[in-house]
Amino acid sequence: MAILRYNFRSEILGINTNITVCYPAGLLTTGLGYRHPVFKDNKLAYEPGMKFQTVYVLHGGGEDDTIPYRYTRLEQYAEKNMAMLVSPSVNDSLYMNTTYGFKYFDYVTQELPVVVQSLFASAFGRENNFVVGMAMGGNGALALGLMRPDLYEAVVDLSGGIGVTLDREEYIRSLHWHFPKVRETLLGEREFVESEHDLRGFAEKNISDGVKVPKIFIGVGAEDFIRDRVHEDYAILKNLGYDVYYEEAEGMKHDFDMWDFYLNKALSDWLPLKRMPIYPR
Amino acid sequence: MAILRYNFRSEILGINTNITVCYPAGLLTTGLGYRHPVFKDNKLAYEPGMKFQTVYVLHGGGEDDTIPYRYTRLEQYAEKNMAMLVSPSVNDSLYMNTTYGFKYFDYVTQELPVVVQSLFASAFGRENNFVVGMAMGGNGALALGLMRPDLYEAVVDLSGGIGVTLDREEYIRSLHWHFPKVRETLLGEREFVESEHDLRGFAEKNISDGVKVPKIFIGVGAEDFIRDRVHEDYAILKNLGYDVYYEEAEGMKHDFDMWDFYLNKALSDWLPLKRMPIYPR
Amino acid sequence: MAILRYNFRSEILGINTNITVCYPAGLLTTGLGYRHPVFKDNKLAYEPGMKFQTVYVLHGGGEDDTIPYRYTRLEQYAEKNMAMLVSPSVNDSLYMNTTYGFKYFDYVTQELPVVVQSLFASAFGRENNFVVGMAMGGNGALALGLMRPDLYEAVVDLSGGIGVTLDREEYIRSLHWHFPKVRETLLGEREFVESEHDLRGFAEKNISDGVKVPKIFIGVGAEDFIRDRVHEDYAILKNLGYDVYYEEAEGMKHDFDMWDFYLNKALSDWLPLKRMPIYPR
Amino acid sequence: MAILRYNFRSEILGINTNITVCYPAGLLTTGLGYRHPVFKDNKLAYEPGMKFQTVYVLHGGGEDDTIPYRYTRLEQYAEKNMAMLVSPSVNDSLYMNTTYGFKYFDYVTQELPVVVQSLFASAFGRENNFVVGMAMGGNGALALGLMRPDLYEAVVDLSGGIGVTLDREEYIRSLHWHFPKVRETLLGEREFVESEHDLRGFAEKNISDGVKVPKIFIGVGAEDFIRDRVHEDYAILKNLGYDVYYEEAEGMKHDFDMWDFYLNKALSDWLPLKRMPIYPR
Repeated sequence: MAILRYNFRSEILGINTNITVCYPAGLLTTGLGYRHPVFKDNKLAYEPGMKFQTVYVLHGGGEDDTIPYRYTRLEQYAEKNMAMLVSPSVNDSLYMNTTYGFKYFDYVTQELPVVVQSLFASAFGRENNFVVGMAMGGNGALALGLMRPDLYEAVVDLSGGIGVTLDREEYIRSLHWHFPKVRETLLGEREFVESEHDLRGFAEKNISDGVKVPKIFIGVGAEDFIRDRVHEDYAILKNLGYDVYYEEAEGMKHDFDMWDFYLNKALSDWLPLKRMPIYPR
Repeated sequence: MAILRYNFRSEILGINTNITVCYPAGLLTTGLGYRHPVFKDNKLAYEPGMKFQTVYVLHGGGEDDTIPYRYTRLEQYAEKNMAMLVSPSVNDSLYMNTTYGFKYFDYVTQELPVVVQSLFASAFGRENNFVVGMAMGGNGALALGLMRPDLYEAVVDLSGGIGVTLDREEYIRSLHWHFPKVRETLLGEREFVESEHDLRGFAEKNISDGVKVPKIFIGVGAEDFIRDRVHEDYAILKNLGYDVYYEEAEGMKHDFDMWDFYLNKALSDWLPLKRMPIYPR
Repeated sequence: MAILRYNFRSEILGINTNITVCYPAGLLTTGLGYRHPVFKDNKLAYEPGMKFQTVYVLHGGGEDDTIPYRYTRLEQYAEKNMAMLVSPSVNDSLYMNTTYGFKYFDYVTQELPVVVQSLFASAFGRENNFVVGMAMGGNGALALGLMRPDLYEAVVDLSGGIGVTLDREEYIRSLHWHFPKVRETLLGEREFVESEHDLRGFAEKNISDGVKVPKIFIGVGAEDFIRDRVHEDYAILKNLGYDVYYEEAEGMKHDFDMWDFYLNKALSDWLPLKRMPIYPR
Repeated sequence: MAILRYNFRSEILGINTNITVCYPAGLLTTGLGYRHPVFKDNKLAYEPGMKFQTVYVLHGGGEDDTIPYRYTRLEQYAEKNMAMLVSPSVNDSLYMNTTYGFKYFDYVTQELPVVVQSLFASAFGRENNFVVGMAMGGNGALALGLMRPDLYEAVVDLSGGIGVTLDREEYIRSLHWHFPKVRETLLGEREFVESEHDLRGFAEKNISDGVKVPKIFIGVGAEDFIRDRVHEDYAILKNLGYDVYYEEAEGMKHDFDMWDFYLNKALSDWLPLKRMPIYPR
């Protein structure tokens, strides 16, 4: 696997920011001279114009773009599934446009894909883009998929729960948590309904408008303190008619043992990946 | 400007290696929605499929891919000239295939361009690729241009002199320098003539074969200890009929004051750059 | 010079953050075996327990900890002055405790020095610590010095002006600038007087309490759009009785030509550095 | 956990090189104000002068200092055992002084510890330093421990086998392997006995001189292609009278599943670590 950290100025955020990008380059070779038989000696050819299906991997609360790659064996899971990975860094914004001016949702959904698809070998089109997140990033992944169903073929929410939610009562409760970044970031209880922080509104509108929605996968540890909230998001989606798969991991908690195991599962089993580069015709 | 360090396994070297890559992203915007008027509000549109003319920047002896970006203001010079930069790291190999098995010349000329053009937005074609080097990298740039004239439109050799040379007597002398890496890396005096370390052989063959050769720019400080050797490379090229420009900088030595000033000059004045991205039609 | 980027979780911020750290390692040698004659062959010995005087370098608005090292030749200026450099990354917070919960001022003044002095070879004591900033970082440096005069021996404000200021009327005006991060970050006009965002209050209290204050250096380009505001900060400090030096650079603007030149001047001429490591007795 | 990559010029190598360093900073807090009760709220105080026991982690063939941190969950294993980690990058040199002039053994054993103990919070003294390696790094760890028994309290060799060995016949065979870097790096069959590449010579001399030697742990997968060679190193050491522990992992091969599992075991169970910082008195 091959990795880079790209440092650039985001126009939407107005600041320099970092993304981590991984390529499945360990399976590529220059030795085939731009011809691309399928896996000669287990290798595929490099070729200008080639693209990779792209999985956006969203870090959890208090973390940044480097953590998923350091605390799990994610690079290896991506390589064997021939996917490219991209991780933004969102400064505990819950992947939302914050009330204090930093528009992280717009950055991740409007600016980042354009930058990544222009400067890196990332395939465009909804069918080639996926989003997976852990903890705060799990909710982020769910929000991205419900608010921009045109962008992602499938969504994986692992142990979500901190941040926006489909359960409006739970949203209000979370404004009073001991984790103050929720209320400092999100709209208050009198303002949030039908706002850009109200996931329920988006989820219902997708259904009523007959919009094509991503396939949704939700995983949570049976011992996770946030298990009920994650399950409730699942139940609401199911009830609304979403194609949603839910799996509860026996004996697992809210930690990197869970996420290391489920990132492999998400990339190897759940996501409908081609597991091949997309070559120019 | 925007920068990344990419860590990947080179097949030809057989090891993990780093490259530094810069994009002129400070002049790009997502706000134009893939339409690309020329410099609206001084910005150009991102667009998937866009490519940048690429300048390979070669570090000097004892250095690595990070040094040119840290010791000069190179990123800013590249940005205002809308060029992408790529720097390999060559472990004091003089940019040659070493006698001890590491084929750095093959890596830089065969593998690196394919990797860079496949995974990054680097334009292909000789007319879009350039090579600039300082000190050991100056000789490296000269060698790349003479040995692979099909790859580079123009070459800039700043303060070259350590490593291969067009002067065969000087080559032999350098095998006895106090800098032992020259003799540990290059072929000995009985073997090097007409070998892959004999720059003179390549330079003469290009002319006798009528090969299209890169435009060559050579700069050196008038006070540089290596000035005479650099000038001799120039004189030999001139004599052979190469299109070569030579400039001696009054009062300048073999240091980053010289290279900072001349990297700007090379990018802004010398190299025949388009100073625009190349958009897909 | 030698550089690292350290990625760690800040307790005060509650998130993973990056700092860039430089050591003047190019002038150090292991060849002296822990003995430390002054500059044998222009080198000084490494020795466990050695410490370096430390200059905190504060980036400007929209930037991060990497920018000063990439856009200027700062590493070389620090090396020849045998200083260690540390740069935090503050996400456009104006180096203040923000109204939305991120306490960047506390992070930079309470947590960062402890982390740096515990994990790196940074000398403690006010007499060994300095702070220099550019643009938003210039104001940051001024604020750090006035609000924590016990921490820094001297302060350099280059082209400050965005953020907190000594001029309360100007503070209020800046809340209405087109740069909305000022009002999203700082307390409003009815709340800020005598608050932690009111630099004037700290500046006056230092004098009335007879506190030992840092030597202050202010530099600004004569053509800088923010020149008047920087000059006003200078005039107020002078009037209050501070030991403050002011220099206006003819023909210079608010850009990295100015900062590259003045970072060298600050490190080489202005700051009262020892220009030697501090060895254990 | 907290991580950095330090880029500096090695005097012994004569080039810029990278090391990766990890601190167990996730268990440290500034909130205790330099007082250090043992694990208040599961945290320990930062304090200038504190030191960490240090485990040098040696990468395998074709890899570099970043790989162990990316391909395993090593940071977490170090954090829970309150150890600091340091990884050099050795360019396929087998951790030896190469025949072509790069003295990697001297770099890793003479220069690196001085640099690390001078610039970072690494404890000195043999009792606080350990070395662990995988594959080529496994042999490297064994070689470091046998050739410099004064430096390391204990050594862990995981799946060693490429490079120097205790079995002189096997050494000669390996000069003819399809992996040519062995013969390009090491002394030939007529020269190596009693040379700095002859591990057997060092191993015997330690015993005959009555030198205090490190505790040695060897682990290898039962299905590893190199299992017999690793076992032979074990058998020779045992026979010579070394305190050596050997463990063969059922069903495991020469890959990161093995190394991820055994790095945890080495740090958590095998190495005689204090699992506490060392505070100044």
